[in-house]
Amino acid sequence: MKARVFVTLKNGVLDPQGKAIGHALNGLGFGAVGEVRQGKVIDIDLAESDAEKARSDLKAMCEKLLANTVIEKYEIELKA
Amino acid sequence: MKARVFVTLKNGVLDPQGKAIGHALNGLGFGAVGEVRQGKVIDIDLAESDAEKARSDLKAMCEKLLANTVIEKYEIELKA
Repeated sequence: MKARVFVTLKNGVLDPQGKAIGHALNGLGFGAVGEVRQGKVIDIDLAESDAEKARSDLKAMCEKLLANTVIEKYEIELKA
Repeated sequence: MKARVFVTLKNGVLDPQGKAIGHALNGLGFGAVGEVRQGKVIDIDLAESDAEKARSDLKAMCEKLLANTVIEKYEIELKA
């Protein structure tokens, strides 16, 4: 089973990297670009066929290692 | 319109950061974890209502700034 985990900064948290990307895009002529936020995506191959178990494992991985839950939030997406 | 862009290393390209995450997860007791790849996710607010135009703009942004197309690939996801 393949899983995709997104780790992004929580909404109130300042994101200078996203701001830099936004300014650069504006400077390149993409005037329609407004707010930009940058985060991480982690693609994981899991040797686990039970989706419920996979999801709870992934949640534990996020809490323990992948995300700093003080300032970051995570989303989990399971693929077939 | 909101868009989400994924920038990940191409398949053949070595990803030491992903490998480190995989090893760390194995070490934490998540034995089911196999290959791990890490990439970037960029959330963009676009002042553009035409989905076709938005998609072509985003493609240009990826080619010009967001991705290094020699070693990275990108995916574009449009939200309402």
